[in-house]
Amino acid sequence: MKVLVLDENFSEYRRLLAAAGVAADAAADPANHLGGHDVLLAQPDLAARYLELGGEVDWIQSTWAGIDRLLPAGLGRELVVTGVKGIFGPQMAEYVFAFLLQQSRDLLFYRAEQEGRRWSPRRPSPLAGQTMAILGTGTIGSHIAGVARAFGMRTRGVSRSARPVAQFDRVCSMEQVTDATRQAQVLVNALPGTAQTRGVLNAALLDTLDPAATLFNLGRGEALCESSLQRWLDSRPRSMAVLDVFASEPLPADHWLWRHPRSRITPHVAAVSFPADVVGIFLDNLERRQRGEPLRYMIDLQRGY
Amino acid sequence: MKVLVLDENFSEYRRLLAAAGVAADAAADPANHLGGHDVLLAQPDLAARYLELGGEVDWIQSTWAGIDRLLPAGLGRELVVTGVKGIFGPQMAEYVFAFLLQQSRDLLFYRAEQEGRRWSPRRPSPLAGQTMAILGTGTIGSHIAGVARAFGMRTRGVSRSARPVAQFDRVCSMEQVTDATRQAQVLVNALPGTAQTRGVLNAALLDTLDPAATLFNLGRGEALCESSLQRWLDSRPRSMAVLDVFASEPLPADHWLWRHPRSRITPHVAAVSFPADVVGIFLDNLERRQRGEPLRYMIDLQRGY
Repeated sequence: MKVLVLDENFSEYRRLLAAAGVAADAAADPANHLGGHDVLLAQPDLAARYLELGGEVDWIQSTWAGIDRLLPAGLGRELVVTGVKGIFGPQMAEYVFAFLLQQSRDLLFYRAEQEGRRWSPRRPSPLAGQTMAILGTGTIGSHIAGVARAFGMRTRGVSRSARPVAQFDRVCSMEQVTDATRQAQVLVNALPGTAQTRGVLNAALLDTLDPAATLFNLGRGEALCESSLQRWLDSRPRSMAVLDVFASEPLPADHWLWRHPRSRITPHVAAVSFPADVVGIFLDNLERRQRGEPLRYMIDLQRGY
Repeated sequence: MKVLVLDENFSEYRRLLAAAGVAADAAADPANHLGGHDVLLAQPDLAARYLELGGEVDWIQSTWAGIDRLLPAGLGRELVVTGVKGIFGPQMAEYVFAFLLQQSRDLLFYRAEQEGRRWSPRRPSPLAGQTMAILGTGTIGSHIAGVARAFGMRTRGVSRSARPVAQFDRVCSMEQVTDATRQAQVLVNALPGTAQTRGVLNAALLDTLDPAATLFNLGRGEALCESSLQRWLDSRPRSMAVLDVFASEPLPADHWLWRHPRSRITPHVAAVSFPADVVGIFLDNLERRQRGEPLRYMIDLQRGY
């Protein structure tokens, strides 16, 4: 099977594959590599460009968690698409609790007190006993919920199926989303980018949260209605928004979100693809394909995840 | 049974006890309350002062986790001392991960980038896969270990008995402490203040850690050899020390620790006694004593915890 890597980190991927005995062509631009390969190991936007330029392939292994940029180029083709799962949940959980705990444990206050050499004890506000609502109960959402439980938090999940998942106290359907978010102190969006998840973080949803709630958007920028967020932040002086994804990335320098006193902006780093992790998944799938076995982490392009 | 409260938060304790139907005298100074009580609900330094002034009592319920300040006044008396357990582990875990994640997720970097409206992605350094060594495997140490495991960390414990504890991959004795700390990326001291734990955080121990390790001292200031710490921090440019307890508190304003670029100082707030939690434990023990049952969280004054 001839492998083509299309990724910003293509040279790192080529090196890792070579170390495993797999020869591969690799590039950051598909233009000069449009024929002669059976498999793409590719970030979804470059895979889409490959298809749009007329490239053909049977199987695409995505190097990213979200594959929405592969649509619509990939839809309606005879194409197997596999994703990467299980490697983003731990990173996302570290991200969420980094911000929650920095806030609840007054780290910026104590930093200033240390600079002034002042001994100023404050009573902390424990996360234990608080409620976290998580949109998305897949590998990412359930990993975050597991850590939340270790901290003694209550966990409510929201998914399309509303199927119970071990790490959640209960799981609601998207239609009953406000049952999960009502009075929650933390709301985490970990939903994939699909037509159904667009605008899910709207005014009606934000208004159900605890007045001192923190919102995390880790899914896709399109899930968030920015004007609703602005009204919510401005009307609730103890609210906070931690945003890693945006409708337009990089976030434009003149965007109001950079300057809001209770927004925290990160540049799409809540979970990054470490090439070594992705290559592990790819090599496992490559062996499965050569043995004619079902691949892991199959994506349903119609569904979008 | 006549109850005397001796605590800085005495009025809050009196109010909580009254709400539960328990009348109590309450003060922040024992001087005018030296007779006529059967039980002290007291912070250990004030209980010691009560005893030193000639006060007598059968049972002391401590409002703090560490009871070392009750020694030596309490030693050699016919005295039941009970502590508070199970309520500090969650707070200590939140404290530890607040600092670890603020660092590993570059929150101060991204804060500066947000102020400059710069989109500057960095690859994070996951905690998952790192090793945390914890001195003390009681309720506090094992709670921290449980959260560390939820984050995918390896956990090694150190205790006097070396008895296996569920949340630890393995537990070593104090004699084998360096087996636990060798190459660890995180070292947490959660040991009580006793003669045996004095100076345990010394040069020989610090030198076994990973060069980029973070040290947490949450036990007692006397556990740490400050000159060893200074040499360790100065010789390892990626090391860090997060200190909540000190041999002299408040930490003197001219102490070098305030100013070291890789020290993080907090004013003994990693876990605080919330009076409502302490009162819950006290009322349970009060009922047990009235029924003639064994009390919970008995302290062995000879052992010191």
